[in-house]
Amino acid sequence: MDLKELYEKSQELLGSEVKLQGWIRNHRKQKDFGFIDFSDGTCFKHIQLVYTSDLANFEEIAKLHIGCAITVTGTLIESEGAGQDYEIKVKDIVLEGDCPEDYPLQSKGRPTREFLREQAYLRPRTNLFQAVFRVRSVTAYAIHKYFQDHGFVYFHAPLFTTSDCEGAGEMFQVTTLDLDKVASSGKVDYTKDFFGKRANLTVSGQLEAETFAMAYKKTYTFGPTFRAENSNTKTHANEFWMMEPEMAFCDLKQDMDVMEDMLKYVVKYVLDNCPDEMDFFDKFVENGLKEKLTKLINSNFTRISHHDVIDILQKAPVKWEFEPIQGEDIAKEHEKYITEYFNGPVFITDWPKDIKAFYMKLNPDNETVAAVDLEVPGAGELCGGSQREEDYDKLVKRMKEMGVPETEWYLNLRKYGGCVHSGFGMGFERLLIYLTGVENIRDVIPYPRTPGNCEY
Amino acid sequence: MDLKELYEKSQELLGSEVKLQGWIRNHRKQKDFGFIDFSDGTCFKHIQLVYTSDLANFEEIAKLHIGCAITVTGTLIESEGAGQDYEIKVKDIVLEGDCPEDYPLQSKGRPTREFLREQAYLRPRTNLFQAVFRVRSVTAYAIHKYFQDHGFVYFHAPLFTTSDCEGAGEMFQVTTLDLDKVASSGKVDYTKDFFGKRANLTVSGQLEAETFAMAYKKTYTFGPTFRAENSNTKTHANEFWMMEPEMAFCDLKQDMDVMEDMLKYVVKYVLDNCPDEMDFFDKFVENGLKEKLTKLINSNFTRISHHDVIDILQKAPVKWEFEPIQGEDIAKEHEKYITEYFNGPVFITDWPKDIKAFYMKLNPDNETVAAVDLEVPGAGELCGGSQREEDYDKLVKRMKEMGVPETEWYLNLRKYGGCVHSGFGMGFERLLIYLTGVENIRDVIPYPRTPGNCEY
Repeated sequence: MDLKELYEKSQELLGSEVKLQGWIRNHRKQKDFGFIDFSDGTCFKHIQLVYTSDLANFEEIAKLHIGCAITVTGTLIESEGAGQDYEIKVKDIVLEGDCPEDYPLQSKGRPTREFLREQAYLRPRTNLFQAVFRVRSVTAYAIHKYFQDHGFVYFHAPLFTTSDCEGAGEMFQVTTLDLDKVASSGKVDYTKDFFGKRANLTVSGQLEAETFAMAYKKTYTFGPTFRAENSNTKTHANEFWMMEPEMAFCDLKQDMDVMEDMLKYVVKYVLDNCPDEMDFFDKFVENGLKEKLTKLINSNFTRISHHDVIDILQKAPVKWEFEPIQGEDIAKEHEKYITEYFNGPVFITDWPKDIKAFYMKLNPDNETVAAVDLEVPGAGELCGGSQREEDYDKLVKRMKEMGVPETEWYLNLRKYGGCVHSGFGMGFERLLIYLTGVENIRDVIPYPRTPGNCEY
Repeated sequence: MDLKELYEKSQELLGSEVKLQGWIRNHRKQKDFGFIDFSDGTCFKHIQLVYTSDLANFEEIAKLHIGCAITVTGTLIESEGAGQDYEIKVKDIVLEGDCPEDYPLQSKGRPTREFLREQAYLRPRTNLFQAVFRVRSVTAYAIHKYFQDHGFVYFHAPLFTTSDCEGAGEMFQVTTLDLDKVASSGKVDYTKDFFGKRANLTVSGQLEAETFAMAYKKTYTFGPTFRAENSNTKTHANEFWMMEPEMAFCDLKQDMDVMEDMLKYVVKYVLDNCPDEMDFFDKFVENGLKEKLTKLINSNFTRISHHDVIDILQKAPVKWEFEPIQGEDIAKEHEKYITEYFNGPVFITDWPKDIKAFYMKLNPDNETVAAVDLEVPGAGELCGGSQREEDYDKLVKRMKEMGVPETEWYLNLRKYGGCVHSGFGMGFERLLIYLTGVENIRDVIPYPRTPGNCEY
């Protein structure tokens, strides 16, 4: 039986014999009895095993180490101790896999997150990471459920690409050339490479997703993405997951409607389906986390143009580190101020065209584009999107201006039955950081890849 | 409104005005009226738009090309024509995006799949690929739903790896070294590469998934996988998706239970949720497809050892191209025979150790391992799995014998609370080929990557 199932059926199982398989998380032994803190990983809750000296193998049980894998049979009873409803009175414990005392996760002292990053293969056994990676799983599912329930077709964007439509500078190159031979021969012959030309790992599936939007009306990607950014910050990883919905017959306003609705749905789903994990984060990681998230669900997101935001910032009684200027980007301090000003999430729309991507729809003012960033209290920018330029000629003009290759198939989407369409992208780990309160992206990815770090 | 919604609520909408946005798939015009075959991609079904010469813009509507994006308003009425229940009597049609006559998807003649592969960005607009890629989406969701409903934690395996635990020979290398500089300098300095050493793209997330199984009891991966195999066959792609469940306290028998249950669930889910698409495949792609799948759902999978399979093959009244031999692999013709012999799916267990992977559990006979391949009628091998070697010393011995690097963290899973555990892997595209009857893997991946082919 799984511990999750035991808790779900605890009322009817009370007084019955149960059998569980899992691991010893802690162990306190006395002369005539002992307590084992037991977990099988199927739910956040542990259960206490109580054993007494009348058991035939009492001595062996008393010697079991933290980390051992065991099978336990016993009776589910109400607990007399504080902080727990149930415990198991042990009938028998069988050792399935020993765990010597050099096991890095001992109970003495709380290991630091830095230490646990070094032990990444063991850290999901700790409470913090057990909670983080289950929330990661449930959040991923919530995203799929939202989009599938709303008629979106899941699109697997290709990861290998030979196009460099989006910022080739930060791409990883993929090759089967023997680099030693490249070095010794003195030349690079891409006709001998696997795809017959230079290939990279994609930085976004959006452009390809647009081809699906023009066939299914609503589509979304959700998959890994790669950026060769040489940044060692708390929010950068070189391999991360991203979702990118794309919708035909959808303008910027409707795009924001979906962003708002989707985000509220996912946050609510996680609060509803991971109550123990969210309680833990609220208590030990970010005080007020649940209140922050509940407030988001119940708020109406403000919608305001970049121009009006700069106006507010310029009039604010604040001494800025970076002066807010019309036509320019906004800084972290500005994001923070504006969400506090409106006391909730803020969609900032209609950005200066020069600081945004080539594919965003040019507004009638010829100065701004129909782009949007979502700023949320306590996290800043959570995601961004735009209406796409559906006018063939205007798109060609922007590509020329910005030096982007004029990819034929992408332009043809505007030629063959194109229409108003929009989409957005959300970094999955950024969402997880917001949901869990865990600050470092290295702690929400099972095996994070950062510059110089590619273990496991 | 989406066309999907219109069909769901057709009874109550009958006689009302509706508004749809989508594309013209075909257009037949007469002197005083015309028929437009309309689709918006939200469901497999199209709907017929009927317009008459009393409309103010009759002449413009009559000129609309195949492929145009339009907004149509009109009344939902019962159809008098054969083959459809409803049609829309047009009140107005607004052109949203034109489509010139050089549009590659004209109605004259059915384009070949080879031609459509060249037009990969347009092919989801055809009936066949519209059906294939929606089934791909729904199948992916069914897999997530099965595992999440059964308490599995979704694990995102890392794709960059510096380990070469599994067949490094067929890996793509990932680098940020400037290859031109490598060539001109005459040497490869991996300390200057992004991760400070040679890095590749993973061929399997299984080993890392085992770390999650030891923390959550049940976990699964579902993500892209890469193999640099230089094979140009109907079943090989170099970038594909794979799912890999991994379960602690689970032996080979329980592993097979999950494989059988999961597969039946997914097949049933797709039949239930994509009835129109499956009818289409049954009619136009593989006659008898639905019967094949329904039979699978209702069958009990046979379980038989590799040894006994070879016995049956050797006694069979068949002239084999490849002679079945004890201790050796079985060929495609054998797979076919054995599923016909048992008239249903067959689990072949306990394979000769020398033809299987190092991590599979050695049986007491010291000759075979606790591995399983699932063979299904009409497709051969669909997936494979094994109980993993949980004995530290035996695993080290197998690693040495097979020349596999003795990766410390992987071995430590056997040292720190290891236990009996099992898992399996299923190629997602192989499943899709089985589900749709479409034979070529290039036709079930939106943008397939094969040797020399990396477009879009």
